[in-house]
Amino acid sequence: MPITFDTNLLIYLLDMIGIIACAIAGTTLAMYKRFDLFGCILVSMVGAIGGGTIRDVMLDRHPLFWMIDLNYVFVITTTSILCQMFFHRHRDIVGILKLFDAIGLAAFSVIGLTVALSVGASPLVAVMMAVLTSIAGGIMRDMICNEIPLVLQKEIYISASIIGSCLYLGLGSFSVDDWIKQSVALTSIFVIRMLAVRFDWHLPSIELRKSTNK
Amino acid sequence: MPITFDTNLLIYLLDMIGIIACAIAGTTLAMYKRFDLFGCILVSMVGAIGGGTIRDVMLDRHPLFWMIDLNYVFVITTTSILCQMFFHRHRDIVGILKLFDAIGLAAFSVIGLTVALSVGASPLVAVMMAVLTSIAGGIMRDMICNEIPLVLQKEIYISASIIGSCLYLGLGSFSVDDWIKQSVALTSIFVIRMLAVRFDWHLPSIELRKSTNK
Amino acid sequence: MPITFDTNLLIYLLDMIGIIACAIAGTTLAMYKRFDLFGCILVSMVGAIGGGTIRDVMLDRHPLFWMIDLNYVFVITTTSILCQMFFHRHRDIVGILKLFDAIGLAAFSVIGLTVALSVGASPLVAVMMAVLTSIAGGIMRDMICNEIPLVLQKEIYISASIIGSCLYLGLGSFSVDDWIKQSVALTSIFVIRMLAVRFDWHLPSIELRKSTNK
Repeated sequence: MPITFDTNLLIYLLDMIGIIACAIAGTTLAMYKRFDLFGCILVSMVGAIGGGTIRDVMLDRHPLFWMIDLNYVFVITTTSILCQMFFHRHRDIVGILKLFDAIGLAAFSVIGLTVALSVGASPLVAVMMAVLTSIAGGIMRDMICNEIPLVLQKEIYISASIIGSCLYLGLGSFSVDDWIKQSVALTSIFVIRMLAVRFDWHLPSIELRKSTNK
Repeated sequence: MPITFDTNLLIYLLDMIGIIACAIAGTTLAMYKRFDLFGCILVSMVGAIGGGTIRDVMLDRHPLFWMIDLNYVFVITTTSILCQMFFHRHRDIVGILKLFDAIGLAAFSVIGLTVALSVGASPLVAVMMAVLTSIAGGIMRDMICNEIPLVLQKEIYISASIIGSCLYLGLGSFSVDDWIKQSVALTSIFVIRMLAVRFDWHLPSIELRKSTNK
Repeated sequence: MPITFDTNLLIYLLDMIGIIACAIAGTTLAMYKRFDLFGCILVSMVGAIGGGTIRDVMLDRHPLFWMIDLNYVFVITTTSILCQMFFHRHRDIVGILKLFDAIGLAAFSVIGLTVALSVGASPLVAVMMAVLTSIAGGIMRDMICNEIPLVLQKEIYISASIIGSCLYLGLGSFSVDDWIKQSVALTSIFVIRMLAVRFDWHLPSIELRKSTNK
């Protein structure tokens, strides 16, 4: 009997940590924009479950994941209300928020990838769904708040999600167990993202500038 | 034989009044942004039927409501063209527009709620769909026009929709007739919204400020 | 045996030219906004296949067109990367980009129209889907980049799509062959758009100004 490890519960927990990070980030941004109680909750909902919603709609998975498991809605609402009550202490948590956010990026990517593969999507589409699940919520949140989406700018974010997803798919060619693939993907995305935060990594622009004059 | 009253026709009429209000509001905003004839019509479409479209897509109801009943498209197009022709008289109608808008908020909420319940959504999801139907169109309209959505800011808007929806669901526990539930929800949402407009009510921020110094 | 001509391959080729135009336009805008490598690719994806994605979701066509034919994703990614490498030469291609863009407008409109008719949509909805396929991607691209969508402003763009679609539907009443209808629609949209670009045509505002004083 092979040694196995059920990663589903772990991924669910990491997912919830990511949801909390998204809810805090969304609420904070919404409060800066002077949205009211429900405006803040709505923006944090969009940020936290918007990406997964678009993924489910594109893959025709109904009912949507948060309609089946109402914990998402409860966790986001509670987090947003608590965050609004203790908004002035927000600066204390920037560090932990980046940690949570990296955990969420890893969990969202692996969930998006496995969900897409489970409905028979091709590997390329699965990687796109991993990226979409991770970032579409944040992009929509920034669009509602009239900000240019941060994740599209100079940050190692999409790239971490793509690298982890490709590792997952690559290991699949060697018929590796699911839990190993998931662990490798989760760890690699988290580590790459945290290293990027720690050392302020940016993806270089690939524009070929004229190297001669001006 | 119990006394009943068919509220479906009433709700349809109120719905159309709300659609007209959304079309006028969308066209007016689009004209300020100097959009052309069709740009204005498109923005008013997004504002008027965008929320219901997102609701139908999320609940997997196909064909979408405005594809079955083309009256929506005709009413919006006609309203938008008339509004563009008589734009300079716009200031005369601000008052009536707020009235129409409150009627629309009530009708959209009740429709979103009942539609969600009819496809077996849980009460929490049904309330979310009521809110979504009422405000998602306006949010998308403001996003297209590069404005921060007004309904998320300091206005009693989402809250009116939530209160009316909860009243509807609460009355459902006492096996009250549908028309009573619908009438109570419609009236309460409309009255709360109009009182908020009249007395300039805002939802208080729930941020706990340090009450001592600075 | 009637003379026929298979326009499907032609439309596919024109479609790809339009996709390339959208990818270049999206990448260029994203680079001005200082997005990174993947940010630019994502924006060009949204611009190129966003409209068709919304159309497919609204019409409940699954899997989405770009999940079946991965050429779309490959072409957009390649175009975006090449465009980022040779960004400084961008000014040389503004003229050809407008040509490509007009080709794309024609192809996207005819595809949106025929796809909608093939799933039994009414003519009015089919025209709306033609417009949606042509412009929704560009609108979402501009929304992500925090710009007011150009196509909604003073440009003959939506109108060209509507005129061509109506010609297609009008010819349908005379039981004309498909390839003739498609050719007429493609040509008319392309010609109207190029004439508008060439002679700087704008749709007049239909606002009835007070003609007397002030």
